[in-house]
Formats: sequence, C-alpha cells, structure tokens
Amino acid sequence: MSDVSATDGFGLANLPYGVFSTEGQAPRVGVRYGDRVLDLAAALDDPVFSEPTLNAFMSLGRAAWDDTRARVTELLSTQPDHPALIELSDVTLHLPIHVPDYVDFYASEHHASNVGRIFRPDAEPLLPNWKHMPVSYHGRASTVVVSGTDIVRPQGQHKAPDADAPTFGACQRLDVEVELGFVVGMGAELGAPVSGADFAEHVFGAVLLNDWSARDIQAWEYVPLGPHLGKSFATSISPWVVPLAALEAARTSTPPRTHDLLPYLQDGDDWALEIDLELDVNGAVLSRPPYAGMYYSGAQMLAHLTVNGARLNTGDLYGSGTVSGTQLEQRGSLLELSWGGKEPITLPDGSTRTFLEDGDIATIRGSFVGAGGERCSFGEVTGTIVPAR
Amino acid sequence: MSDVSATDGFGLANLPYGVFSTEGQAPRVGVRYGDRVLDLAAALDDPVFSEPTLNAFMSLGRAAWDDTRARVTELLSTQPDHPALIELSDVTLHLPIHVPDYVDFYASEHHASNVGRIFRPDAEPLLPNWKHMPVSYHGRASTVVVSGTDIVRPQGQHKAPDADAPTFGACQRLDVEVELGFVVGMGAELGAPVSGADFAEHVFGAVLLNDWSARDIQAWEYVPLGPHLGKSFATSISPWVVPLAALEAARTSTPPRTHDLLPYLQDGDDWALEIDLELDVNGAVLSRPPYAGMYYSGAQMLAHLTVNGARLNTGDLYGSGTVSGTQLEQRGSLLELSWGGKEPITLPDGSTRTFLEDGDIATIRGSFVGAGGERCSFGEVTGTIVPAR
Repeated sequence: MSDVSATDGFGLANLPYGVFSTEGQAPRVGVRYGDRVLDLAAALDDPVFSEPTLNAFMSLGRAAWDDTRARVTELLSTQPDHPALIELSDVTLHLPIHVPDYVDFYASEHHASNVGRIFRPDAEPLLPNWKHMPVSYHGRASTVVVSGTDIVRPQGQHKAPDADAPTFGACQRLDVEVELGFVVGMGAELGAPVSGADFAEHVFGAVLLNDWSARDIQAWEYVPLGPHLGKSFATSISPWVVPLAALEAARTSTPPRTHDLLPYLQDGDDWALEIDLELDVNGAVLSRPPYAGMYYSGAQMLAHLTVNGARLNTGDLYGSGTVSGTQLEQRGSLLELSWGGKEPITLPDGSTRTFLEDGDIATIRGSFVGAGGERCSFGEVTGTIVPAR
Repeated sequence: MSDVSATDGFGLANLPYGVFSTEGQAPRVGVRYGDRVLDLAAALDDPVFSEPTLNAFMSLGRAAWDDTRARVTELLSTQPDHPALIELSDVTLHLPIHVPDYVDFYASEHHASNVGRIFRPDAEPLLPNWKHMPVSYHGRASTVVVSGTDIVRPQGQHKAPDADAPTFGACQRLDVEVELGFVVGMGAELGAPVSGADFAEHVFGAVLLNDWSARDIQAWEYVPLGPHLGKSFATSISPWVVPLAALEAARTSTPPRTHDLLPYLQDGDDWALEIDLELDVNGAVLSRPPYAGMYYSGAQMLAHLTVNGARLNTGDLYGSGTVSGTQLEQRGSLLELSWGGKEPITLPDGSTRTFLEDGDIATIRGSFVGAGGERCSFGEVTGTIVPAR
C-alpha cells in the first residue's frame, strides 16, 4: 500500500506525538499522520493518552514507546482512514510536555566560535573548556511555550559600551536561536548518572526549539553567572515530538575531535543526527543550519547533564544550543548573520534587519531522511514579535 | 496566657508551615508550634491541607494566608493542647513545596567581593553590573531537597591551573553556601512583571537554603554560561517555611547605595530583614553571617526576576545568594572562610578543613526577633556528606 501521507513529511516513517484539543473536549495525546491527527485515546482505548501532556505516556519507558509505535504503524497501515483520525484544521495544538527542568547547551563549534569572535574579538574564540565538555546552563522551565505563542518584546537593563550606567527599556536586539530540543521520557534518580550508551532508554524524542534571546540584556547581565533575563522571557518549541525511533535513520557520527574526550563522554558519539534546519523571517529563508555538524551529540549532552548525580525527570527538556555551520548562510542566529549588528540583512521586500522588529514572524523548520528514504518533517516552531508592554 | 512554646523559637509569633507524615498516613500540611506539629487538615477541616505540598494552599493568595494564620493563632491561644497537635518526634518531615523554577541570586556585596578577590585577584572585585542589578541565574529545580537528605559528593571535570587538560573524579572542593530562600505563593502570568511593592502579595515565606557547591567543577565549567554541574547535584532547604507575616517584625532598610537603582528596583528597599544566621560544621559554629546587610532585598530580587515578563509560579524558589558580612567570622562559605583553600580552618577536635570531607555534617540555623520581641527560629537545614559513588 502506498503511503500518500509521506509526501508532506508526516508519513509512516515519522509519526510524531503531540497534544491537541477539539471544540469542547480536553487536550489529549495524538499522533500526526499526513494532514490529520490520530486521537490515541480513542484509537487505542488507553487512558494514558487522555492526559493533557505526553508525560504519563513517556514515563512508561522505551518498551511501551516501541509497542505503541508498532500498534499505531499497524493501525494506520491497515486503516488509513481510521475513524479516530481528525483533520489538523479542526484541532488546536498545545504544549506537548510538562517541563520540570530545562537546560540549554552550546554544542555547535561554529556558533560558539562566531559568538566568541563577536563578543571577545581580541581573544581565542573558543574558551578552554569548550572542547572538553558540552558547556550548558539552566533556563526557565515555566516559560517554555508552544509554537504560535506571541513573543512579547522583553524589557530590561542594557548598557551601551560607552555609557556610564545602564538604562531600562525594551530590548533593542531581539534574536532567534535555531536549536534542536531533546525530551526526556524516562528519568533517573538522584545520584544515578546516565551513560550516553543509554540515551535511547531515557530520551523519548526531539523538537525544534527557538531560544529567543535579548542580546542587549544578555550582554550586560551575563558575567559572572551566565544568561538569565536575556533568555527567560520565552523559549518556543514545535508541537510535534519526533520519536527517537524515527530519528534512528538519521544517525551519523560526530565530527573528528581535536582533543580526546574524558571516558564518560565517549559513549554516544554515534548519535549525531543528519537534520536539515532552516530559519525563516517573514517568509524569507535566511539560513539553513546543518545539525549533523554539532560537536556533541544529544547522548553526550545527557551524560554530561547527569554525571554529577543530578536527578533526571520525565519531561525534562534540553536544547542543543544554536546550530550554525561553517558558512554564512548556515548561521542559526541573527547575531551571527548580521555579525553583531554590523552587517544588516536585506529581506525580499527590500527592508533590512539586524535584529527582530515588532510584527516580525520568525519560523524554524526541520526535516530528515527517515526509514526507507522517506522525508520526515519536524513541522515548525514559529512566533510573532509583539511590542513591549 | 503565657506562650511557653516561644522559648524554643516556635511560639505564636512564628507559626511556620511544613509538610509532615505520621506512620501509615500520607504527607500533609502542618504548622509547627513548640515541639509539636498542628495537623491542619484535622484542625481546620479543609482538604487544601491534605495535599502533599504547600502549593495548593499557597496558590490561594494572601487573604487566605492571613485568614489561616489568624485562625491558627486563635486556636493555639485558646487550646494550647489541641488534639490535632502531634509530637515532632512522631513525624517525618518532607520537602514542603513543589518547585517549578529555582533561581539563585548573588546579593551580598561582601560575598561577591570576596569571591571576586579570590578568583580574579588582579581585577576589581565587583563586576560592573553588580551595583545595578541583583545578578542571578537558574538552578536545577528538581534537585531541591529537604534538610536531612544525604549529599553524595558529586563527580565531574576539574582542571588544575597548571594542567594541560581536565581530569574526571570526585569533587575535591565541596562547599556550603549559607542563604535565605524565598518561596513564591501567588504566581504571575507571562508578560506581567511584579513590582517590588507587591512582594507580600506574591511571596509566601522564607526558608534556610544551602546551595551546596563543587568549587573545582564550577571553576572549570562556568565560563561563559555560568555555574551548572558545580551546583545542580543538590540544594537543601529547611522543612519549615516561615511566613512573611512573621518576618514583618524583622523588616529593615537595605544598606546605603553608591549607585542609584533604576526605577523598577527602587520599590522594596524596605524589605531587608534582620535575620541572624549561623554555619555549623560537625557541631562547631564557624561563622555568623548577618542577613540584614544584603545589598538587595527579596522584593527587589522578585522585581528583577520578572521584569522581562517571565512567568512566576506558585512554589517558585529563589535564593538570596551566599550571605557574608564584613568580618571573617561572618563569611557564609568555606571558600571565603579558608580564602580559596589557602587558610585552613581548625575545628574544636583539632582537625582542619579547607572544604568538606566525607562524613562531615554541615548545618545552617537562623532566627529573628518576631512580633512582641519573641525570638523566632527557622529551625535548621542540615546535610551529611557521603562518599562519591
């Protein structure tokens, strides 16, 4: 049987999970198939799918994930017009996960090097620890929002390099960061580090993630404790969580290394992923960052995150950090594309941008080649900038 | 009527809230009175107190907090042997709050200056932003644990200054940080900053907080994104949340300022707090940090935390940062007391410490003068260091 749904990136090789609602009914779990959503609670008659997030299902562990995927695949293969399929246009999509903790990494060598050159032009672009560990920090879990949520321009302190004192006002350098986000399904107890080899036992899947960044606020606040208010106003994720089972087909190896990694970071080198990303502002594609070049894999990030015994929970989210390639047209942030605001970008309508203006719509898309050569889509994560309040 | 329970710091002027269980019964909300716990679900016949955390009660807002405090005060004044009072020795205490997000500040000028002198001896001790904002970062919400939880020595990367590459192993410089933690009762929506003037509408109370710190891991990882694994293994809090209503009596003004604060940070200057803290290691009091000297108040921290529109949730916890005074015997961390490990501290048993050894017990205590001049106690937050696994 031919899988007509594969043409739009949501065929049988993909089958991502999300949370949706229909008029008058509470949010529940669905699987996207083509332009429709399979209502899992109805199709599989299991109350775990009547929950308003994926967390209860994800907490069941990999055997349950594999079993459900097999059942959904069988069901859609044999009943492509199953009565529990609902048109996408008839549903509202919700934040698919409850996030206990959110961590953001910084795992692209090209991004970290670009940022180093822009902010510290007279020093080595990469700091000494960068090639030894996936550098990372905690973000605000409760401001993770679903694609489509408006982004209110944040206010805060910024200080011009030549000013004596900071001023307060709306962010003047509002930026995007093109990232992949990993969603933890199975947690781990306090004091029980997770090996990179066990990545697929703990991580349920991945989403697109936009780590909105107020560069002027961030630049003034970030020493010595790192970014806080420059990031904590919003982090957007795509509504569909692509299962690791689908991403298996996109696995590749991390890039050659210039420094040996410590043993706890050596497992999971085989979880780099061939994912094509694109950054779109107001309908114009500004860059196409290649995820495959990331220096650290999601498995290595997980091993690092837990090596000190930190507890891991179902729903924990960790971002890859901005994805940038070697080329200008592969840079995953406006900071890099405009080189710190010095080189404006011209949009097709003739207007120019260094950072985002009110009314701008920023969208990240992603796709990969899944099982059987079928193109699989992450869908998109989008947000419109609305004026500061 | 005399209040005999006041002699131990848990009289009628205090009445902190916690979560306790008794043999065979689920955790529920109680108020500490002397050496006993008032079972609130039993005493007030309200299911909000049968919950396993304070969150449901806290989410009701200040009018409900005030009303409950008035009822409990009346009840214990008239029935000091109320049948719902249970001996403290018969209960187990639990983590009193569910923490959606945890932020840690850095609000003691003396601590920030000491750390600056230790880590950057050739530069100005305070960084340029410090006098303009309460510098802060997010920590790991899910590793906030209740007093009495053993602290497993974390493992991680550290690099000696003269080494070419990092090594992996157990932390060699495990430290405490004496802090106060503020507990948010009433949240605020995304995009709705909270004024410092509304502190008492949003913050329910305060706890003692030990921000355990692996100094060697932290020193190597923290540039440029701030502390992560050097902190995320555990943060301990005391089991009793002292209501802001009790702390009102300890209010004072923040210290004189050398720089004008931006308008959004000017409200709440009158929420400095006269709290006496002490740090005890293995039964010896090593320091007595005075909380009153903190440069930023809890109200100012809250205004900063939300000024960019970040959502605030019931149960959010934010730490003050290490409390240190001007004197050596007022320093709130071993890093400062041993001046970066260079000046060992001698304990009463003749042994010396620069940082914590396995088996050490670190305890923070705190108290203040409450209404009517009655001494009120925070109780303590304690933890025993157990060997790395």
